Amino acid sequence: MSAQNKQFKLAARPVGVPKDSDWEFTNAAIPAAGEGEVLVRVHYVSLDPAMRGWMNDAKSYIPPVGLGEVMRAGTVGEVIESNNPAFSVGDHVTGYHGVQQYGVSDGKDLVKVDPSLAPLESYLGGLGMPGLTAYFGLTDVGAVKEGDTVLVSGAAGAVGSLVGQIAKIKGARAVGIAGGPDKCRYVVEELGFDACVDYKADSFLNDLKEPLKSGVDVYFDNVGGDILDIALARLNRHARVVICGAISQYNNTTPVQGPVNYLSLLVQHARMEGFVVFDYVKQYGEGVQQLATWYSQGQLKFKEHVDTGIENFPSTFLKLFSGENFGKLVLKVIED
Amino acid sequence: MSAQNKQFKLAARPVGVPKDSDWEFTNAAIPAAGEGEVLVRVHYVSLDPAMRGWMNDAKSYIPPVGLGEVMRAGTVGEVIESNNPAFSVGDHVTGYHGVQQYGVSDGKDLVKVDPSLAPLESYLGGLGMPGLTAYFGLTDVGAVKEGDTVLVSGAAGAVGSLVGQIAKIKGARAVGIAGGPDKCRYVVEELGFDACVDYKADSFLNDLKEPLKSGVDVYFDNVGGDILDIALARLNRHARVVICGAISQYNNTTPVQGPVNYLSLLVQHARMEGFVVFDYVKQYGEGVQQLATWYSQGQLKFKEHVDTGIENFPSTFLKLFSGENFGKLVLKVIED
Repeated sequence: MSAQNKQFKLAARPVGVPKDSDWEFTNAAIPAAGEGEVLVRVHYVSLDPAMRGWMNDAKSYIPPVGLGEVMRAGTVGEVIESNNPAFSVGDHVTGYHGVQQYGVSDGKDLVKVDPSLAPLESYLGGLGMPGLTAYFGLTDVGAVKEGDTVLVSGAAGAVGSLVGQIAKIKGARAVGIAGGPDKCRYVVEELGFDACVDYKADSFLNDLKEPLKSGVDVYFDNVGGDILDIALARLNRHARVVICGAISQYNNTTPVQGPVNYLSLLVQHARMEGFVVFDYVKQYGEGVQQLATWYSQGQLKFKEHVDTGIENFPSTFLKLFSGENFGKLVLKVIED
Repeated sequence: MSAQNKQFKLAARPVGVPKDSDWEFTNAAIPAAGEGEVLVRVHYVSLDPAMRGWMNDAKSYIPPVGLGEVMRAGTVGEVIESNNPAFSVGDHVTGYHGVQQYGVSDGKDLVKVDPSLAPLESYLGGLGMPGLTAYFGLTDVGAVKEGDTVLVSGAAGAVGSLVGQIAKIKGARAVGIAGGPDKCRYVVEELGFDACVDYKADSFLNDLKEPLKSGVDVYFDNVGGDILDIALARLNRHARVVICGAISQYNNTTPVQGPVNYLSLLVQHARMEGFVVFDYVKQYGEGVQQLATWYSQGQLKFKEHVDTGIENFPSTFLKLFSGENFGKLVLKVIED
């Protein structure tokens, strides 16, 4: 067992696609739990598109990661020392310990999870923030209802794969957009979407026609760019466009591409609404419970893409932007 | 009195700013009212930005005006012949007779108005479609509430001038954007907005700071383009952006300018929603009643910009896009 705490600190503000030198890979001493605190040994680090935004020095829904600070990330791990009566050694918890192997917390941001119900890493995926993002985004912001056609981009991804499955549970039709035939096959055959269209295919626009012949009632956008415009052009009356992310734009060095077709909102009396999952923090309990129930009933499937070795963090993180990952991307950082 | 019916018919689909030759100015025989119909002598024709959209051969919330058809426009006039028991000769009515001096209707789209309560032309403005647009757009789509800061572009225009006044009635702060010091002075001193900022001034962005120091809760957009982006960058949490129009974009020969700052919706959990006033057709009665009550109590002021002579239709219409009009633009087409 490593006697040190390997960690990635933010070293520079990236321009465009982050490069290795934007982080510093260092060793620190394993911290001790102070009064009221717990020490957590991190098993898995979550890799999420939003992390790219946290690296920019820009006002947003949370402050940016400071230069010299451990790179912020969601984590799941085990309590190995506790001075907090709410947690015992051996408890498994999710938290925000960042890209490192050990972290200390006062417990306020920790949530206990049960590894006997689902694999530990799924608490960073379908039963974690991506699952909650899909759940609140589709049911609250998107106000999905029976008979709707729900279109979702990033359909094989951590959030998108859940959006379509929840749409089906709610009695809607689910149409996915994903990159490549393997992902599309998975989305339809494994996850049960009604259709999935490959945006990398030359026939993409034509392929959308049949599955969207009755228009789009909810478009759940994870990507922005051209695909957002394509969806806006196909809205039904009173459609809802859920702005969850814009991964196509996060590494831009030019201005963000604004949706040219936004006047569809006027013609169709439609709305476009954004959110981040933190807006729903008071309802996390209800959300996790619902997701876990569906999971235990076999109504939801999750897939994680697990890379191993904390030293691989930069190259693993970049898979999000190349679309190389297949399923929720996590990095196993615990060493045997 | 003219024994003929002067009219403008659509002759060509305009590219960019419409030119005279996009219409044909002709004389027709004055039509007769058929069974169940009424003949209306038109006094005033309404000139609205939306008419530019109706000239394009594009799918929208209503069909485009066909080539060779009388140019569609709202009108107010007097019934001079009636075969419909719901209307008597001498009744004053609003309708959609288009840019001509006489029109026939089966009565379904006609609304009786009372010229003793307000000048006839105001039924095309504050007590007509622009008033209803402001009313439903701000109260329903914008969900304005006490204490909000409401920002509205085109603040001296037919819709914008009402938006700010209704905001004040609802206990909100009203901040306008208009072109030039005369319009801004009118908006503040005559209409009672809390502030108005001149978008033509070099100091525009700086001038916005003080009136928007507590951010924007509702942005009512009539213009699109750069000003929409400026508003998006200043949204408060849970803000509402009402997409009513985009006059800056209607004569574009290049693609519409999409709002680059749309990811503010995500950061602020805000929404952008569009509408057209026709969506509220079942509530017109309620809306007109409310507007007329406020008007009679001295809480709403309207201003009409009246040009005279049907032959001047093209040049008068273009004032909407140069910003030359000051108040609701109407054309008096009745001849003595």
